[in-house]
Amino acid sequence: MSFSAIIPVGTLSDALSPIHALVDECKIRLTDDGLSIRVVDPANVAMADVSLDSAAFESYDADGGVIGLNLERLTDVLSMGGKGDLVSLTLNEETSKLDIHIDGLSYTLALIDTDTIRQEPDLPDLDLPARIVLTGDDIDYGIKAADLVSDHISLAADDDVQEFHIRAEGDTDDVDLAFGNEDLLSASVDSTAESLFSLDYLKDMSSPMGNDTTVSVLLGTEFPVKLRYSLSNDHVEVQNMLAPRIQSD
Amino acid sequence: MSFSAIIPVGTLSDALSPIHALVDECKIRLTDDGLSIRVVDPANVAMADVSLDSAAFESYDADGGVIGLNLERLTDVLSMGGKGDLVSLTLNEETSKLDIHIDGLSYTLALIDTDTIRQEPDLPDLDLPARIVLTGDDIDYGIKAADLVSDHISLAADDDVQEFHIRAEGDTDDVDLAFGNEDLLSASVDSTAESLFSLDYLKDMSSPMGNDTTVSVLLGTEFPVKLRYSLSNDHVEVQNMLAPRIQSD
Amino acid sequence: MSFSAIIPVGTLSDALSPIHALVDECKIRLTDDGLSIRVVDPANVAMADVSLDSAAFESYDADGGVIGLNLERLTDVLSMGGKGDLVSLTLNEETSKLDIHIDGLSYTLALIDTDTIRQEPDLPDLDLPARIVLTGDDIDYGIKAADLVSDHISLAADDDVQEFHIRAEGDTDDVDLAFGNEDLLSASVDSTAESLFSLDYLKDMSSPMGNDTTVSVLLGTEFPVKLRYSLSNDHVEVQNMLAPRIQSD
Repeated sequence: MSFSAIIPVGTLSDALSPIHALVDECKIRLTDDGLSIRVVDPANVAMADVSLDSAAFESYDADGGVIGLNLERLTDVLSMGGKGDLVSLTLNEETSKLDIHIDGLSYTLALIDTDTIRQEPDLPDLDLPARIVLTGDDIDYGIKAADLVSDHISLAADDDVQEFHIRAEGDTDDVDLAFGNEDLLSASVDSTAESLFSLDYLKDMSSPMGNDTTVSVLLGTEFPVKLRYSLSNDHVEVQNMLAPRIQSD
Repeated sequence: MSFSAIIPVGTLSDALSPIHALVDECKIRLTDDGLSIRVVDPANVAMADVSLDSAAFESYDADGGVIGLNLERLTDVLSMGGKGDLVSLTLNEETSKLDIHIDGLSYTLALIDTDTIRQEPDLPDLDLPARIVLTGDDIDYGIKAADLVSDHISLAADDDVQEFHIRAEGDTDDVDLAFGNEDLLSASVDSTAESLFSLDYLKDMSSPMGNDTTVSVLLGTEFPVKLRYSLSNDHVEVQNMLAPRIQSD
Repeated sequence: MSFSAIIPVGTLSDALSPIHALVDECKIRLTDDGLSIRVVDPANVAMADVSLDSAAFESYDADGGVIGLNLERLTDVLSMGGKGDLVSLTLNEETSKLDIHIDGLSYTLALIDTDTIRQEPDLPDLDLPARIVLTGDDIDYGIKAADLVSDHISLAADDDVQEFHIRAEGDTDDVDLAFGNEDLLSASVDSTAESLFSLDYLKDMSSPMGNDTTVSVLLGTEFPVKLRYSLSNDHVEVQNMLAPRIQSD
């Protein structure tokens, strides 16, 4: 197994943060096309699937191996560089370490035995009837609004008026945030859809999104929601999936 | 009872913050002239009296009713809007709820039975011999200075030299902050006056004042102090009263 | 004993902060040439020696006495002024207090009996073979790097290539930050030197250094390190000394 690569710190961070939002350790597949990572959180509620295109790298050499990483430590090392600084990664298979260089800084990161890391989940192929496109900012605002009254959040799409709603019901107070057709980047709602989710998980998922990032929300009724977006000039593709809570909760 | 009104978020916040500095729940009187709120803190030490002029509203319709509100929740909702955004408030008497709208956000706030809220205090009509006018900044600086050595603060006005002093005595160290006539916006001291106050209460009272706000301090000897200021282009009139501590404390 | 002086707040703060980083109380020698302070931390690991030149003062009158001060309180008072504001200090020997004035603010600081303050240490005269000059920023970055993996930090100078290294060994990961000759302001390494130090102490020592401050590092092998720098246009001269940890620790 061989791997060596050079990439801007910011791009690698963009690829890791949606994963780190859900887990502390992960396997990274080092393929010809780039890096690919897929994880599910310990409670089996939230998934993230990230691919980082080999075209994002200044230099890239991989032969299809898989390595196990502590994301906390890797993220801490990357924080030592600026977004535009180049980080070089070189696998030392003999010592089971990843040699990381940012300018004069050398960091030797011990790899984790991939057998001890939770298995990568399958991402189910769902046929979801509503597709809403809005910004990361919109999702943040909706989460903040729901958080005023509840720790659950309902996402709802209306096929009649092509509207999207973020709703929450508290013990005494309720919130309803409406996005009309003109507030959305795009809406394609084949049939009315509404599902309830844990607010904390959605917060975790939304934190790596940039404010201006275009996010596609794929929604059904009492079905998982899928969130799709890309970062770093589309070099990083992210897909999140979050299981619904039962409405009577 | 009917009430519906539209007002900039920042103006309503300005009217609520001097009240929220002392209590979590309050009654709001919905009169022809605007909103009026008067509260005393649970320990009966500090009072606030706020009136919000009907002229501050984009539209205003009230018939003299009284509603009970949780200030924490209302403040949280207002934080979802920018200062210049318009918030619309509509009383739904049937459900005992206040419907609040800021752009696409709808929030249904459950009212509190006014019988369960502490009675509004009378603001005693005191004849105080010293009247000092300075800025919110000056008061903040004096509080910070007194806080260096004590949790009590003495406010003192000298009729001889028309000076104002903020003083504090610690176990080992003392502070004396002098405002000469030229440092004050105005001073009218008929007889020397000095009273001691709890620093924490004065901190709470001063936090809603803006830095540049003109504040009138009315002072006597071992008497309550009155603080008067206005916010939002004089649409919000605030009067605070704070009971003195005994000097031998 | 008489002492009265006027000095910009920022200059006095610069002189006190390297001392306050190690201790809460100190003796200040009030000599003809200015103020001089020398302290060792309670564990006898770290020393600081500061001199503040009488030329830094607007006016300065001292006759060689020694006063004892609580640095926390004096620092708090100075925080009430801006860096450029003048602070006046006047010793009142009768009351054993220091009268401090910043604009309209008067603060009476009780002195501490110098007999109750830990004795001033001797600064040993060491012959250290390596002298590295770099910026406060460089030291901060090295501390941050070492902190990723350990609570110890190794400083090392190589006489062959005139390089400086900051290294740390963690349980699984290692860090090595290299400063080549071109990264350093100057290097004069007579023989290779390396010593290990407690990261916390070095953090404390580095916090009063400015980012752009030129810092001389004098290093030996399993010997104390000396750090020298000046602040406030060279009016404040600082020398730190830190005892090494044993490598096998």
